[in-house]
Amino acid sequence: MTFIATPQTMRFDAPLALQSGASLGGYQLAYETYGQLNASRSNAVLVCHALNASHHVAGEYAGQPRSLGWWDNMVGPGKPVDTNRFFVIGINNLGSCFGSTGPKDINPATGQAWGADFPVITVEDWVAAQARLLDALGIEQLAAVMGGSLGGMQALSWTLQYPQRVRHAVVIASAPNLTAENLAFNEVARRAIITDPDFHGGHFYRHGVVPQRGLRIARMIGHITYLSDDVMNAKFGRQLRQAVAGHASGYRYSTQDVEFQIESYLRHQSEKFSDYFDANTYLLITRALDYFDPARAHDGSLAAALAGTQARFLLVSFSTDWRFAPARSREIVRALLDNRRDVAYAEINAPHGHDAFLLDDARYMRLIRSYFENRIDTPAQAQGGTA
Amino acid sequence: MTFIATPQTMRFDAPLALQSGASLGGYQLAYETYGQLNASRSNAVLVCHALNASHHVAGEYAGQPRSLGWWDNMVGPGKPVDTNRFFVIGINNLGSCFGSTGPKDINPATGQAWGADFPVITVEDWVAAQARLLDALGIEQLAAVMGGSLGGMQALSWTLQYPQRVRHAVVIASAPNLTAENLAFNEVARRAIITDPDFHGGHFYRHGVVPQRGLRIARMIGHITYLSDDVMNAKFGRQLRQAVAGHASGYRYSTQDVEFQIESYLRHQSEKFSDYFDANTYLLITRALDYFDPARAHDGSLAAALAGTQARFLLVSFSTDWRFAPARSREIVRALLDNRRDVAYAEINAPHGHDAFLLDDARYMRLIRSYFENRIDTPAQAQGGTA
Repeated sequence: MTFIATPQTMRFDAPLALQSGASLGGYQLAYETYGQLNASRSNAVLVCHALNASHHVAGEYAGQPRSLGWWDNMVGPGKPVDTNRFFVIGINNLGSCFGSTGPKDINPATGQAWGADFPVITVEDWVAAQARLLDALGIEQLAAVMGGSLGGMQALSWTLQYPQRVRHAVVIASAPNLTAENLAFNEVARRAIITDPDFHGGHFYRHGVVPQRGLRIARMIGHITYLSDDVMNAKFGRQLRQAVAGHASGYRYSTQDVEFQIESYLRHQSEKFSDYFDANTYLLITRALDYFDPARAHDGSLAAALAGTQARFLLVSFSTDWRFAPARSREIVRALLDNRRDVAYAEINAPHGHDAFLLDDARYMRLIRSYFENRIDTPAQAQGGTA
Repeated sequence: MTFIATPQTMRFDAPLALQSGASLGGYQLAYETYGQLNASRSNAVLVCHALNASHHVAGEYAGQPRSLGWWDNMVGPGKPVDTNRFFVIGINNLGSCFGSTGPKDINPATGQAWGADFPVITVEDWVAAQARLLDALGIEQLAAVMGGSLGGMQALSWTLQYPQRVRHAVVIASAPNLTAENLAFNEVARRAIITDPDFHGGHFYRHGVVPQRGLRIARMIGHITYLSDDVMNAKFGRQLRQAVAGHASGYRYSTQDVEFQIESYLRHQSEKFSDYFDANTYLLITRALDYFDPARAHDGSLAAALAGTQARFLLVSFSTDWRFAPARSREIVRALLDNRRDVAYAEINAPHGHDAFLLDDARYMRLIRSYFENRIDTPAQAQGGTA
């Protein structure tokens, strides 16, 4: 049993100046809210989403029983982020394909879909757009901003761009930037999409096609890197989809058939993904990941980059996450401690790799619940600055 | 300075019965030999190659100064595998694209290139074909069989298929089978090739095209998994190919351009690869990797699978190899010890990931040199059975 979520949209007419130097004219953001904003407006929690998620964080849509939000185990009445106490906001990032303005929408300058002409959006741009939406909702300060993975990068960026507007930042399974290996996986995924003949330089909409081949490859690569080797072995191992009688090995001896369960799983997941995800959005989001690097403007010093933060921090990482390894979270923790910030850190011993941040690990859930219950206050009187 | 290598070919007219149940009619194998077979024929060393290598193990071709063999640092006069003492043989695997019969050759039954109709070849089939070539060379017993990665699987398989023909097996950076994660990476690579519109179901030769897009994606994925995260960070990190003046970040803010050095490296490597490697061979070889699993016929017991071995073993792994992690080599070591076999094992602390088996790590080279110098004898009288 969960509650009914109601998606909303908000239109913004003032152009948004982007980090690239470009500017986005009018745009809209899709968002959802859960719970009630209190009178002092001190109980707002912004949940930032990662690659293929959206503003639909929790609950389900009326009449759509299989439409559960992507973090429904975390957010809701009585959940770790308890919507009986907090007013939770999910916003679909600019450039996405789930309701906020993105590449598949019409470029007013041409009357055609933006496609590859949609401006490059950074983590900082997302945060700026989110801040505007909070302005419109009358929320001056967040009790907390939280997110996992790329969502954690946004939470971290909030504390840099709007230090006075964030009391707590909960940064889960994240990193201060991507490693070369992460950059490399993103590049392969993008190349698969861009070199798909159906991509048409990013203007496939006008050809009535979708670069599904490329999207599927991209999604497969993503999936593999979200899971740990251990969990893949436990879940699929070397199991055959359907062993062939007559061979001791049970193999079909074919190069093109699906034989192993893991192959079947990857194909199924990637096919689903290519049916709903926009290829240009995939490019934009992976590039936003690539570019995020707050230390870059500070000669590589993350401590210098984080000097202006005022929030309190909870950092969480997962032992088997090799995409955003615990060591990367510890870099953030160290840089915050160098600045004498109030920071808590937990490394959860979980087998599920990067995906663990989305799953129901009991210790993880208790940790978040405890932090929100015990550390985050929602004062009846509005406060300026930090809590 | 190195020596001149001379590729040779040998034709086999008797059909080869394959593990799949199919049979390959006449075929040829490309091979090279280095050093001199001694009078007692006791000094032969077979070097098995991995994915994209060949029979050209060492030396260079006359008049082709950039044609150095893929393991020239390991094999040659005065090298760890010293061709002044050993007679070393490299054989291009069946189904490859470097001289042995493979998918781009003519299928006598149709008069056209085999393409996707080339029979599926397993590690065991390669070993059987290699054994026939050794028969023809008059070599009854190998002083050693050695290989890294997929080459190590062949070395291991030699000790199972022809226990009396192998005195020593040197199995480097290998595994008793692929993990689910390895299977998954192979599947993505194959999907990239198979879904490339230029693949034409594996019969692209008759269309005068090559599925270069797919091959490039496959190669990129391979490259990432051959390297360690550490070495990628050390070599490329987040360096930009050409920083853009005017932006504090130096970024170009583009989703389709090459910006990071790692992207540039991957594109360059993948383009080179797609110019020379056959797509059907890539499918065959990854499938041979997938299928290799000697424990499968023994209810998953590797110890039972290795009970028939008679060789002495050297196993080597590399600390940062996450494709064939040290733990996988230790599985083989344990199973051999369960059978009271003579086995030496070294885990080399090297930063280079899986690729380390091809590189000049001093401890690694000393280890192999010492093993070949001190442990492998080349008796003047031919021996039956084990040494």
